Amino acid sequence: MIKAGIIGSTGYSGEELTGLLYKHPQVEIDFLCSHSYVNERFSNLYGNLKRFVDEKCVSDEEAFKRIKDIDILFTALPSGKALEFGKAAMESEIKFIDIGSDFRLKTTELYKEWYNLEHNYAALLEKAVYGLPELNRSKIKEAELIANPGCYPTASTLALAPLVKNNIIDTTSIIIDAKSGVSGAGRKASIANLFVECNDSVKAYGVTTHRHTPEIEQNLSELSSEEIKLTFTPHLIPMSRGILSVCYGKLTNETDSEKLMDLYRDFYKNEYFVRVIDELPETRWVKGSNFCDISLRVDTRTNRVIVVSAIDNLVKGAAGQAVQNMNLMFGLKENTALENTPIFP
Amino acid sequence: MIKAGIIGSTGYSGEELTGLLYKHPQVEIDFLCSHSYVNERFSNLYGNLKRFVDEKCVSDEEAFKRIKDIDILFTALPSGKALEFGKAAMESEIKFIDIGSDFRLKTTELYKEWYNLEHNYAALLEKAVYGLPELNRSKIKEAELIANPGCYPTASTLALAPLVKNNIIDTTSIIIDAKSGVSGAGRKASIANLFVECNDSVKAYGVTTHRHTPEIEQNLSELSSEEIKLTFTPHLIPMSRGILSVCYGKLTNETDSEKLMDLYRDFYKNEYFVRVIDELPETRWVKGSNFCDISLRVDTRTNRVIVVSAIDNLVKGAAGQAVQNMNLMFGLKENTALENTPIFP
Amino acid sequence: MIKAGIIGSTGYSGEELTGLLYKHPQVEIDFLCSHSYVNERFSNLYGNLKRFVDEKCVSDEEAFKRIKDIDILFTALPSGKALEFGKAAMESEIKFIDIGSDFRLKTTELYKEWYNLEHNYAALLEKAVYGLPELNRSKIKEAELIANPGCYPTASTLALAPLVKNNIIDTTSIIIDAKSGVSGAGRKASIANLFVECNDSVKAYGVTTHRHTPEIEQNLSELSSEEIKLTFTPHLIPMSRGILSVCYGKLTNETDSEKLMDLYRDFYKNEYFVRVIDELPETRWVKGSNFCDISLRVDTRTNRVIVVSAIDNLVKGAAGQAVQNMNLMFGLKENTALENTPIFP
Amino acid sequence: MIKAGIIGSTGYSGEELTGLLYKHPQVEIDFLCSHSYVNERFSNLYGNLKRFVDEKCVSDEEAFKRIKDIDILFTALPSGKALEFGKAAMESEIKFIDIGSDFRLKTTELYKEWYNLEHNYAALLEKAVYGLPELNRSKIKEAELIANPGCYPTASTLALAPLVKNNIIDTTSIIIDAKSGVSGAGRKASIANLFVECNDSVKAYGVTTHRHTPEIEQNLSELSSEEIKLTFTPHLIPMSRGILSVCYGKLTNETDSEKLMDLYRDFYKNEYFVRVIDELPETRWVKGSNFCDISLRVDTRTNRVIVVSAIDNLVKGAAGQAVQNMNLMFGLKENTALENTPIFP
Repeated sequence: MIKAGIIGSTGYSGEELTGLLYKHPQVEIDFLCSHSYVNERFSNLYGNLKRFVDEKCVSDEEAFKRIKDIDILFTALPSGKALEFGKAAMESEIKFIDIGSDFRLKTTELYKEWYNLEHNYAALLEKAVYGLPELNRSKIKEAELIANPGCYPTASTLALAPLVKNNIIDTTSIIIDAKSGVSGAGRKASIANLFVECNDSVKAYGVTTHRHTPEIEQNLSELSSEEIKLTFTPHLIPMSRGILSVCYGKLTNETDSEKLMDLYRDFYKNEYFVRVIDELPETRWVKGSNFCDISLRVDTRTNRVIVVSAIDNLVKGAAGQAVQNMNLMFGLKENTALENTPIFP
Repeated sequence: MIKAGIIGSTGYSGEELTGLLYKHPQVEIDFLCSHSYVNERFSNLYGNLKRFVDEKCVSDEEAFKRIKDIDILFTALPSGKALEFGKAAMESEIKFIDIGSDFRLKTTELYKEWYNLEHNYAALLEKAVYGLPELNRSKIKEAELIANPGCYPTASTLALAPLVKNNIIDTTSIIIDAKSGVSGAGRKASIANLFVECNDSVKAYGVTTHRHTPEIEQNLSELSSEEIKLTFTPHLIPMSRGILSVCYGKLTNETDSEKLMDLYRDFYKNEYFVRVIDELPETRWVKGSNFCDISLRVDTRTNRVIVVSAIDNLVKGAAGQAVQNMNLMFGLKENTALENTPIFP
Repeated sequence: MIKAGIIGSTGYSGEELTGLLYKHPQVEIDFLCSHSYVNERFSNLYGNLKRFVDEKCVSDEEAFKRIKDIDILFTALPSGKALEFGKAAMESEIKFIDIGSDFRLKTTELYKEWYNLEHNYAALLEKAVYGLPELNRSKIKEAELIANPGCYPTASTLALAPLVKNNIIDTTSIIIDAKSGVSGAGRKASIANLFVECNDSVKAYGVTTHRHTPEIEQNLSELSSEEIKLTFTPHLIPMSRGILSVCYGKLTNETDSEKLMDLYRDFYKNEYFVRVIDELPETRWVKGSNFCDISLRVDTRTNRVIVVSAIDNLVKGAAGQAVQNMNLMFGLKENTALENTPIFP
Repeated sequence: MIKAGIIGSTGYSGEELTGLLYKHPQVEIDFLCSHSYVNERFSNLYGNLKRFVDEKCVSDEEAFKRIKDIDILFTALPSGKALEFGKAAMESEIKFIDIGSDFRLKTTELYKEWYNLEHNYAALLEKAVYGLPELNRSKIKEAELIANPGCYPTASTLALAPLVKNNIIDTTSIIIDAKSGVSGAGRKASIANLFVECNDSVKAYGVTTHRHTPEIEQNLSELSSEEIKLTFTPHLIPMSRGILSVCYGKLTNETDSEKLMDLYRDFYKNEYFVRVIDELPETRWVKGSNFCDISLRVDTRTNRVIVVSAIDNLVKGAAGQAVQNMNLMFGLKENTALENTPIFP
């Protein structure tokens, strides 16, 4: 059995991860750590897991002590908080997956620029492998430290990869207009995310400044011969889970929807977790699952392609992808504990 | 492998059942029948099951033909529509579970009174076993024809059974005020159930006339020495899934919350699917699962007890309970394919 | 022009009141006070009122100073916080309306018992008039200090008053099962009221202990020859606004729905803000208005009556009723600034 | 008093219009016509207007007869259904406002291409004035027949007009990604718009094919020296009301957010119904009002501008704008009956 520890277990991503690992046939949860709820029973915070995960949360200090006795450590923390845990995990020579954002950008300068935080662990950044299995599988298998992708970058990168990789769109023309459920904002007391503030309304936020922008650019630039800059606009939708990413690009050559759909079907033909579908994706069809649904339409009037992808932000956009990465790191079947079909309604 | 057929597969209960049976290790779905969507791919109607259930729906005629080749037939149909299928299943000597309401009331007269429909199959009614395993397990194991309980009756009967069985409340004092998600209204085109009509509002409906009233009365009367009449008020809540049943009864003797909680814990101590919990149940903690959460409070000021139960109306209130019944009928472990924990958020 | 000050203007009730008074033809808002947002522009907190209410909020200190220059002071504050303001208003001999709960219960002992707070202003309690105009109009016209009713008590008292006043139900049999939108919980940062926690779920809360219980009992006892104790169960519904109150009582004599409906129509025949309707009330039909819709059904099988009432918790349940009271106190037409019809959808 | 008739009064736009005209001090509603609800009381369909609009709906035939006796006719109908009413209104020499889409496109060919319907009233098309007062006020004042703009075109045109008019963006670069509440889909029985299908999910629809595309192009082309083609992607959001339009354009010259904001403030400085605001618009801040909130951000990294606008689709996007147009046509103050501030929460 793989012994796992979870730091930040009581946020929404942490809880999703806890639930997935609880059901994982090869994993044993060694400890659940929570900064805010030390000594509280996990199932008092998440009544869905009553009877299943009744353990008490441990403190950061306790967690640091136990790292040496486990096989893998997961962090699901706000920016800047995972660095020390990453260091400790590497020192104990165990596997480490950061579901947060501390190891995704390739340089400390870029991190400083977008997160406005110092990142004093350049050596760890070098070790870090970006955990998007569909594009990076072989490296993930060998990795010690995984930077689990952000929710928007997961949906957007999978949507655009076939186009960018095959030089089908003008790389200066990319616009991503993405929509997220409120769980993406985390489980912390805030007025902005109260039911009454979010209900029955929609807004864009972080326009031109969202931190997932450089992450997506980094991913796409790696697939391209050019350094890509793009416009990314996230929105908050009155729903609990889900991300819909709508990506626009100018076609470099004439083509049509069918040809591009074929390209996508081929590109993802061996990917269990990507469903290239005829219909436009909707977040409800992926809820509770690790799937990414993708479809596209060519707008022949304007010579653009519109690619739409949908994921569950807490699963493929966070905890599920972390488990997928863990499965790869430990040589397990990639979809172990991730075979549940989406739940609707 | 148990070969199963599903009639009414494209309603919400039918879809939930299809998803559960798809994952069931001992079951093979032989056919999915739909009145409205003959020859449509199931996953075109329910995109969540794309890649998993891509079969085409068959017609009623086709379904009737295939009954003799399967081991169990499920119906999830509007009132009055399951009768012929029940007859056919009995004639073919296969097992039959009606998720609808055609075999729940014990007499054709009562059925006529509340459903305003003729029920010309009194012989089938006699065969019918009420499929609430927590109260009726041994009979279910021997049954050929199961009347799967209604959603409100499941939540309400489990909430009140320990009190009624133990003569703790005045049986003339029972009031049930229940709240349901909109999936309980089915997947049919209607103005009343449009998003805009249901969103951000709450209403009571069917006050004094709801058809689940005699079903609950029948269940409780069987546990009591008296013929019970009660008041039942259902509500529509702007949520997709879930039922919360709040049950009021006058105490016949002085007692307190702790004593009654102990009684409940004991009453359900061997029941996998009932969680007696300290906190008041909320529908979000049981979503996507076959669990029924129950708690209670004694109001010493008025000498009443308030019992609150929560289920997922599509699982424990419909398809999940049907699978639980099927498992019992075929001698399988009762929670096979039903072990998934509730999903939150 | 009536000069008004609002304490607690930045909560949901405060904002509703601000909007109503802004539109009131006889009122001029002198100051908006906010504990948390001193010097913030009101419309930065409530973008709906941008261009209309761009004033900056003043501090408590500033507010106290200005009391002597205004004609009426409103408080919309958490329990215990309005007492000093009430005292100051009385000393300045201006009118005072507390939308909060500090002057509703008739004795300091009852206040202590249910609110667990000391109430050192018994003299003010004596001055306080309970501001439910439909039952208390003449006193309100003469009042200096109004205790504006709670949201649940408003809906529940109006629903039950005709029955209790006319001895139609057994006063020991009353059960109120009420459902509220989340705005009732106020605009303060809290995990429990996050979108993700409330969305797509329903729960009962404060069972047997909710502070509106003694307020409703007090109201009904006054209409009855007996001291009434009742059971009150509030629920949280995933909607922003609205209260639905479902009230159960045992009939003392045989009657039917039509007779009781006639009684209600007669009882409220001169009331602009009460609509006795044939259909069961739904909260969506009163949203954004000061109306209370009421209907009822007699359950002849169990000899009970079920009365259902619906209000907008922020209007008739708070700010609208406060304006209605103010109109009465100043001799204005009772529905001044309150004539807007409900908004749907 | 202006005597008005409303065809299609029982749809969501029709109901909104009915409510607005009911409150209009210069208007008397002569008849409410409904195809589906002939002889039904209006307030039986819309309980919010109980006591206020209790009239019975008349049939199409009856409506045709009464046209000669009124001063203005409004139609709020599906495509193709308003043509005959427009003809009849012109023959009776009364004013006519079509809230639907039958008179918006300038040629019968374009109408045929996008609506797939014959339009045999080219003469009426020539009479038709596009009713966007902020851009077309003087013509509206003289008009007999108004084509009331679509909801998406209203939000999008107001968002982009200052840029296009002033040649600030490359007109081949325009992308509009818009989000609508479900009331935009109308009040007709349909599975796709059931609560359960829309709740907690988001989807794009009509990608590359939505009928509002040519309408927006027509509007912007008129402001530009060039024929504009653009990409328009609408989305369905789980909310009742509101449209958020997010518009992207490539800047032709270097500029910054402040300069463009100044341009917008100046462009709309005399417009009562346009609020140019610093914060990013959210649909909740305009709900129930005729306002259009606009803000923008320049993305200096990619040399793009992102303009965001928010309206209430039923008010500024339909009925409110129709009343605004009517006010102009009859020489009334433009905001008569439209002064209500947005309602939040």
